[in-house]
Amino acid sequence: MEHGDPASSTDFPALKNDTFLKAAWGEVTDYVPVWCMRQAGRYLPEFRETRATQDFFTTCRTPAICCELTLQPLRRFPLDAAIIFSDILVIPQALGMEVTMVPGKGPTFPEPLNEPVDLQKLNENVDVTQKLAYVFQAITLTRHKLKGEVPLIGFSGAPWTLMAYMIEGGGSKTMSKAKRWLYQYPLACHKLLKILTNVIIDYLVGQVSAGAQALQVFESHAGHLGYEQFSEFSLPYLREIAQQVKEKLKASGIDQVPMIVFAKDAHYALEDISDSGYEVVGLDWTIRPKIAREKTGRKVTLQGNMDPCALYAPKDKINEIVKKMIEEFGTQRYIANLGHGMYPDMDPEHVATFVESVHTYSREKCKNE
Amino acid sequence: MEHGDPASSTDFPALKNDTFLKAAWGEVTDYVPVWCMRQAGRYLPEFRETRATQDFFTTCRTPAICCELTLQPLRRFPLDAAIIFSDILVIPQALGMEVTMVPGKGPTFPEPLNEPVDLQKLNENVDVTQKLAYVFQAITLTRHKLKGEVPLIGFSGAPWTLMAYMIEGGGSKTMSKAKRWLYQYPLACHKLLKILTNVIIDYLVGQVSAGAQALQVFESHAGHLGYEQFSEFSLPYLREIAQQVKEKLKASGIDQVPMIVFAKDAHYALEDISDSGYEVVGLDWTIRPKIAREKTGRKVTLQGNMDPCALYAPKDKINEIVKKMIEEFGTQRYIANLGHGMYPDMDPEHVATFVESVHTYSREKCKNE
Repeated sequence: MEHGDPASSTDFPALKNDTFLKAAWGEVTDYVPVWCMRQAGRYLPEFRETRATQDFFTTCRTPAICCELTLQPLRRFPLDAAIIFSDILVIPQALGMEVTMVPGKGPTFPEPLNEPVDLQKLNENVDVTQKLAYVFQAITLTRHKLKGEVPLIGFSGAPWTLMAYMIEGGGSKTMSKAKRWLYQYPLACHKLLKILTNVIIDYLVGQVSAGAQALQVFESHAGHLGYEQFSEFSLPYLREIAQQVKEKLKASGIDQVPMIVFAKDAHYALEDISDSGYEVVGLDWTIRPKIAREKTGRKVTLQGNMDPCALYAPKDKINEIVKKMIEEFGTQRYIANLGHGMYPDMDPEHVATFVESVHTYSREKCKNE
Repeated sequence: MEHGDPASSTDFPALKNDTFLKAAWGEVTDYVPVWCMRQAGRYLPEFRETRATQDFFTTCRTPAICCELTLQPLRRFPLDAAIIFSDILVIPQALGMEVTMVPGKGPTFPEPLNEPVDLQKLNENVDVTQKLAYVFQAITLTRHKLKGEVPLIGFSGAPWTLMAYMIEGGGSKTMSKAKRWLYQYPLACHKLLKILTNVIIDYLVGQVSAGAQALQVFESHAGHLGYEQFSEFSLPYLREIAQQVKEKLKASGIDQVPMIVFAKDAHYALEDISDSGYEVVGLDWTIRPKIAREKTGRKVTLQGNMDPCALYAPKDKINEIVKKMIEEFGTQRYIANLGHGMYPDMDPEHVATFVESVHTYSREKCKNE
């Protein structure tokens, strides 16, 4: 690419709003920063219009469109962070698995992993820099187009969550196929989880090199595990990812970025998660804020956790819920967010209310503290 | 019906094995009783064969077949309780809603409740004794056919869980339609929950009159709620059910039966649940036994909570898991069970191992205590 091409140059505009990063690092902020999981999503008419032009994974492979989708919510709401538009299943694809997005059904693997012998089909020595270059290009381009307005978050699925998709072949209510592996083939599971962990580490380091200013790791399927299985098949890999990403950034002379872990429904392991090397712990809406503070101490920043369905509530009710949430989390070491991604039928105006409410109420509270 | 007809006479054979009931009442037992949620299920070839003759809800309305399905697992395993074969959706049906079982999709309501005005469609003054007579007949018949071998458990869905099905029109990953109601139409929700509560109370009392020796209330969708919504839309109704069933039994001069509440994934409210008027609290597999004992004190008997997927494990691993579970729960005020229902692809032999392991290990441990 030529010199000055915004998809390759990493000479980025200066950051104007660092409130999200400060909160993530545990520094004092004068209001609570806020973003929403799946803020670039189908609830926005402009998102649906942009997405309609091509299939889902082609979109993921088109940096200019990923950039556009990432920026759309920022044009509407004074969010304190952007998150790159992409999908956690780009990693199984990079490993050689076919994944298609089936409308009304979600992501589907025509040939999931059925038995441990299928691990041989994976291209475990994948060159992430080459295979996932399209994500890195999207990140670099978006960093430029953001013009320093807010930081850009990169992300990855966590190993167990990706493994579960690769075995189930898509979504599942019980994850019983993947869990069968955990009980019947623990060694093969560890092998697969290790392959995924290595790729995830390279992928996340590559995202930071490309311009990501924070990283979130999604262990979306943690709730299917209990404490023992989480401790054996998820936590060690989450730890390794945090540790190795930090080490590799250091070794490459790249500035560290704050890392967020979001293990959905892992209420049973909150203490361990808060001690796993991440600066920020994301919480789903079933975790009570005060209990989360008790269990995690002041070691980490907490992120979350309004029930996404609260966006269906009338605006004054949203204000009430936000106020209570900030009362309970406090204004410091806290990033407001939903407890899960938004749904397509949500009203953008209610997202505006949520964001404004977090800002207004937390600024007021910070002044009085 | 003529005198002596086993579907109507309530002069039942004497109970030979009361270990389950003793544990439920908090009395001393010399081993840990065990049963499995969905023990009458598709994992049994004889179940699949019996079920194949007619559609699901026709089966539910045929007492002789419900009785046969209930007894099948008892012929294979030395379980300490039977649970009547039926479905939680018989209540929405009794209220006038159509529900069909769509193979591969599950229960489906062709006309779910879309808006509060749809509540008018419900026949809220339903005569439960008449509309759900087929369940009562199945219970009476089964009590006779059980010949006192083990106690028979009756059950019902809890109000929020039934409401969620009635609005979603079937299963749902997010329950976002039903949750939208909670945020937008709280008054209509309370009206619906109250209608359901009244019917459930009559239904459970009717089951005991018909011969049920214990009752389980399934709040299967509790995990979609957070603490606030559970406290408003689930817990008060669970409490009312326990209280009213006990009062009505007393007023009718019928012996009390122990009541079990199973609020799946309601980790956030375990203290409140253990104080809601039920003798037994069922636990899903994400709850750590020691923490459950801490949070519930010795006020209630605990039931659960092996991960159903642990039945995929090799037999020696199942033994290990059972041993650890009994160590952690202790042998008293404890009923062993799974943390959720069984899946169709499970191996009956592994269920045998689970049951045997609970008996063997707990007897040994009781002797040494």
